[in-house]
Amino acid sequence: MSAVIDGNGANALAPRIVGVSLAERSYEIVIGPGILDEAGRRIAEVLPGARMAVIADETVAGLHLDRLALSLTAAGIGFETMILPAGETTKSYDNLITVVERIIGGRFERGDAVLALGGGVIGDLAGFASAIVKRGMAFVQMPTSLLAQVDSSVGGKTGINSPQGKNLVGAFHQPSLVLADTALLDTLSPREFAAGYAEVVKYGLIDRPEFFAWLEDNREAIFAGGEARIAAIATACEAKAAVVAEDETEQGARALLNLGHTFGHALERTARYDASRLVHGEGVAIGICLAHRFSETLGLAPKGDAARVEAHFAAAGLPTRIGQIPGETPKLGELMDAIGQDKKVTRGTLTFILTRGIGRAFVERKVDPDKVAEFLTRELNP
Amino acid sequence: MSAVIDGNGANALAPRIVGVSLAERSYEIVIGPGILDEAGRRIAEVLPGARMAVIADETVAGLHLDRLALSLTAAGIGFETMILPAGETTKSYDNLITVVERIIGGRFERGDAVLALGGGVIGDLAGFASAIVKRGMAFVQMPTSLLAQVDSSVGGKTGINSPQGKNLVGAFHQPSLVLADTALLDTLSPREFAAGYAEVVKYGLIDRPEFFAWLEDNREAIFAGGEARIAAIATACEAKAAVVAEDETEQGARALLNLGHTFGHALERTARYDASRLVHGEGVAIGICLAHRFSETLGLAPKGDAARVEAHFAAAGLPTRIGQIPGETPKLGELMDAIGQDKKVTRGTLTFILTRGIGRAFVERKVDPDKVAEFLTRELNP
Ligand SMILES: NC(=O)c1ccc[n+]([C@@H]2O[C@H](COP(=O)([O-])OP(=O)(O)OC[C@H]3O[C@@H](n4cnc5c(N)ncnc54)[C@H](O)[C@@H]3O)[C@@H](O)[C@H]2O)c1
Ligand SMILES: NC(=O)c1ccc[n+]([C@@H]2O[C@H](COP(=O)([O-])OP(=O)(O)OC[C@H]3O[C@@H](n4cnc5c(N)ncnc54)[C@H](O)[C@@H]3O)[C@@H](O)[C@H]2O)c1
Ligand SMILES: [Zn+2]
Ligand SMILES: [Zn+2]
Repeated sequence: MSAVIDGNGANALAPRIVGVSLAERSYEIVIGPGILDEAGRRIAEVLPGARMAVIADETVAGLHLDRLALSLTAAGIGFETMILPAGETTKSYDNLITVVERIIGGRFERGDAVLALGGGVIGDLAGFASAIVKRGMAFVQMPTSLLAQVDSSVGGKTGINSPQGKNLVGAFHQPSLVLADTALLDTLSPREFAAGYAEVVKYGLIDRPEFFAWLEDNREAIFAGGEARIAAIATACEAKAAVVAEDETEQGARALLNLGHTFGHALERTARYDASRLVHGEGVAIGICLAHRFSETLGLAPKGDAARVEAHFAAAGLPTRIGQIPGETPKLGELMDAIGQDKKVTRGTLTFILTRGIGRAFVERKVDPDKVAEFLTRELNP
Repeated sequence: MSAVIDGNGANALAPRIVGVSLAERSYEIVIGPGILDEAGRRIAEVLPGARMAVIADETVAGLHLDRLALSLTAAGIGFETMILPAGETTKSYDNLITVVERIIGGRFERGDAVLALGGGVIGDLAGFASAIVKRGMAFVQMPTSLLAQVDSSVGGKTGINSPQGKNLVGAFHQPSLVLADTALLDTLSPREFAAGYAEVVKYGLIDRPEFFAWLEDNREAIFAGGEARIAAIATACEAKAAVVAEDETEQGARALLNLGHTFGHALERTARYDASRLVHGEGVAIGICLAHRFSETLGLAPKGDAARVEAHFAAAGLPTRIGQIPGETPKLGELMDAIGQDKKVTRGTLTFILTRGIGRAFVERKVDPDKVAEFLTRELNP
């Protein structure tokens, strides 16, 4: 933690490099402002001679694609660009097929790479395409949203949505390199920045209480940009990389990363995935608060921790209670159904990530659905 | 080889088991007549508690699905069946999505399995679906064609065709178990049996000259069924398993398995993938003969080996010359184009699997396209 807390005065804005250790699939995450202009050089080092199929959404392409193109050209890297609409509905079978056919038509080979420039939507879709063209091409992630920089670009989960549910179709396919330009976040909307920030806080709450305390002291600096932002993103990536190295294909330990997500996904579902009402990170913020309050109710966590978490999210401009979601409040039955859909109900019990207090989350496989319903009844009628 | 050549008098039709060694992805191939009736028990041992999404084509389902269903039921295994049209065009995006959505709709979990009952088409499609539903479910192969038993069901290559070419979209996804009932081949058409046999012979020609000699002595017994058939399939699986264990994701050594395939694929392409003119194994048979004759022409292989290979294929009812393909003979230019499409042309040279004689194949990365054209000119105008 010392590097994060102390900063590094002499070389304040030098990029931070976080390694993801996965034997022959290991790779580096490079984090810092201005990385976009070094992209060509850094990619050529890791994938010499590879051509790039660059995928971006319209918003990000309009803002940042020209600079990427310049950097690739300067490094002598050949590329083609494919631009898709922005938004969650882009993660569809149709767009996947379009991208795959464009890559094949561009005569890209297995040693060439798909380069995702964008948020989690583009990263997930482009990564999945790279996993299945010719049974696997190289893949480079250039995450441009805070959520993508601290979560979706790290760990190799790729995929699209099925009409039957989110992220149900995909592959584990690790990138060869992740380039996170922290200055690109300056064009992100404050709402999307805050949503991504919920995932940053999550890592502190799972098992890094000192990181959570540091976030409490540095939140404004992180939102402002600069050294604190780089440090926060690097620590989040380190936290995720550690879990991924232990459990690449989500057999066990990786489950802790779902802190707040069972409640959060249920809220996203009952809000009909309407981003004007609730984006993912907002659902996670409320979900994390619910997980802490539920743990307190069950007598697992000390009184006061839930309130501290709630205060931090609120200060960051995030919602913390179900009642804050615009539109109709979900009914208890709807919410319980949505929870049952997200998690397999094993012999009448539910699996939740609960906590013994800040930085002490754990997996509980035997949660009594009646206890959840009782708790949510109070949350829905405060 | 002794087990193959000697047979095993005491227990003549006991199943043979071939292991595929891939660390935690290792699995067994069980080969013998009547395995279909033991499928439930054998699957329950490897995947206790798993439900099965059974995929078959109409032809195979009509002949053999009832017995599989009985066996699964007897072992207490829950399952759903999905039946697709027979034929290469089934390996399409549309069928992939249909199968994936049916699996998701059936509420199969990651620990459940997709079970492919059929030839290489069903195995490739179902295997790919199992690789991408929830980023990877378990997978069981029950190959029912000779080609599938000795080639496509072993090694984890799965996929579908793109409108731009065959097998361009897919994943490496190893099965948990392969069950090859050699008696099911009795319902296979003689033409399809012979086509699969070309791939059996291929393993002898790559690096097992004693196996090729044994095949020369046992061809009729293999076509008839019984012990020789089991032995031939087991040896072919051993040969493929050895290559796969060395090179799981086709970075190098696996290339030798393409003996005869550069010419073969080019012939399939110029025959417009019309199965009434040429099926894959027939293209491979001609391709292997061309590779041997070309190697002889180049002075690499001793005179006479090509003729011996040709005689063996001819006795098995397989074509050995381009002129035997019904319909219009391809033009040289067409054939050379098709060869260039199959293999990346690296700085003006082509990669071919050539041979120094029977059982002595090797990868040659610097084949002069002019030499190939010269050779093919003679082959096209005998
Ligand atoms: N693969 C994983 O492990 C993983 C983990 C978490 C989330 N996800 C997925 O990630 C997706 C959510 O990611 P997201 O929040 O980045 O969504 P997103 O990609 O839709 O980006 C959010 C919005 O911000 C815009 N944007 C992105 N970068 C910008 C920039 N620098 N400037 C201006 N606008 C910018 C986008 O155009 C979009 O409108 C979901 O589909 C989710 O399932 C995946
Ligand atoms: N994954 C790999 O490593 C790999 C390797 C080689 C080939 N392949 C693929 O395999 C496919 C070819 O395999 P195939 O030749 O088995 O094709 P196939 O699956 O189409 O089967 C050939 C025909 O035989 C029928 N059939 C299968 N078993 C039968 C039985 N027991 N009784 C009666 N009829 C039966 C089928 O219905 C079909 O009409 C191609 O798509 C090829 O790309 C994959
Ligand atoms: Zn999340
Ligand atoms: Zn073949």
